[in-house]
Amino acid sequence: MSIVLYHSPKSSASRRVRLFLEEKGLAYEAHEIDLSRQQQHQPEYLAINPLGVVPTILHDGRPLHESGTICEYLDTIFPEPRLRPDDPYDLALMRNWVRHVDGLIGNLIRFNWRHHLQKKAEKMSEDELQAMLTKIPSAERREAWMRVARSPYTEEELGEARSKLIGLLDQMEDMISGGWLIGGRYSLADIAVAPFVRRIDEEIAPEALSPVQRPKVAAWWAALQARPAYARADFGAFVDA
Amino acid sequence: MSIVLYHSPKSSASRRVRLFLEEKGLAYEAHEIDLSRQQQHQPEYLAINPLGVVPTILHDGRPLHESGTICEYLDTIFPEPRLRPDDPYDLALMRNWVRHVDGLIGNLIRFNWRHHLQKKAEKMSEDELQAMLTKIPSAERREAWMRVARSPYTEEELGEARSKLIGLLDQMEDMISGGWLIGGRYSLADIAVAPFVRRIDEEIAPEALSPVQRPKVAAWWAALQARPAYARADFGAFVDA
Repeated sequence: MSIVLYHSPKSSASRRVRLFLEEKGLAYEAHEIDLSRQQQHQPEYLAINPLGVVPTILHDGRPLHESGTICEYLDTIFPEPRLRPDDPYDLALMRNWVRHVDGLIGNLIRFNWRHHLQKKAEKMSEDELQAMLTKIPSAERREAWMRVARSPYTEEELGEARSKLIGLLDQMEDMISGGWLIGGRYSLADIAVAPFVRRIDEEIAPEALSPVQRPKVAAWWAALQARPAYARADFGAFVDA
Repeated sequence: MSIVLYHSPKSSASRRVRLFLEEKGLAYEAHEIDLSRQQQHQPEYLAINPLGVVPTILHDGRPLHESGTICEYLDTIFPEPRLRPDDPYDLALMRNWVRHVDGLIGNLIRFNWRHHLQKKAEKMSEDELQAMLTKIPSAERREAWMRVARSPYTEEELGEARSKLIGLLDQMEDMISGGWLIGGRYSLADIAVAPFVRRIDEEIAPEALSPVQRPKVAAWWAALQARPAYARADFGAFVDA
């Protein structure tokens, strides 16, 4: 098998790649990286992903990280069905959109890490915590681990993050035309933001997705969830019972 | 003329696009945006670049921002000479490299803004400063303006930034093969980092570029500067006399 995916079921970037792979109909071998056990900071994983984040793919044995880069790469190698706009200008807009969505991940982390990662982190001794922090390459991620371990995000901080994520829905409402974000055709632009919208729907601001408030986004979200690939990607419930 | 560039002579992202345009041999109409007079936060500029940063291009009247996206777009529209690797895997590595370099811009800002922007910002009254800050879409840029206006970066902070930028040179020393960063051919990967290396050479850590310390980077930098496009892009002296 030529595609191996290292992912975490609850990571939005991992979910993006899984949704993409299912939409393409590509076979892949999936390996779960347990973030709560810091498997992403182990030397063998850092060898294929120096940032120590998920996901990473191996394609014919060669590693590649960054979910947006992974999807564009695989969409070139396996051209059908094409999930990037044909028009170069639309393609450029798609790239800036994916980049913009990526830049909002910190807002999602404030909500997501309160669950399984916080439970783990707050039980760590000071020594365990410090030992873990020294293994994390990204300053942003070190900060997030510190926060969930010792000073969980406040309601005010969650509120700020919620506003930013609702702002993303407003941008989508402006962008959607012909049912999809770019060029009236389902593409990586839609796939890139789907894991964010899933979490907004589940916990962060479900009311913001009502057809009364944002009719185009509501229809977009219904259509995206109706795609067979969405069921196959199987995001699962975020919060453990 | 079909390409219009809105740029600032000292902005690294603007310099990247100029170096690219000169290497491609493309004609363009350049308009300077005076950052010290906050022209990037004026409504007419925000209409074509909602982030309020330079550069932006208009191609056949359509706006596009983000220097990496701009260069990839123009390299598609004007295929010769091609400045992206042919191999899809190398192309993916190029994209991740450009993204990585982009992520280090905060370190360059600590050095760059001490000059012309700090001189302007520290003279502002509290009212002028607050009025300006409300116009800046990016939280990161608001923070940087606050710092240069009221609490300039400390020697320790400059030292941290210098280390990160020297780390970038170390990565380059590992990557360079056949003279260039990716696939032994001059590409956007080289162009993307050239404005950073220029500032390292000029002020931040010139000794780090010595052939004794980093032979491949030193040879790369000499070869890049010898390209006719580098002279035509004319970065100029960074620090005003």
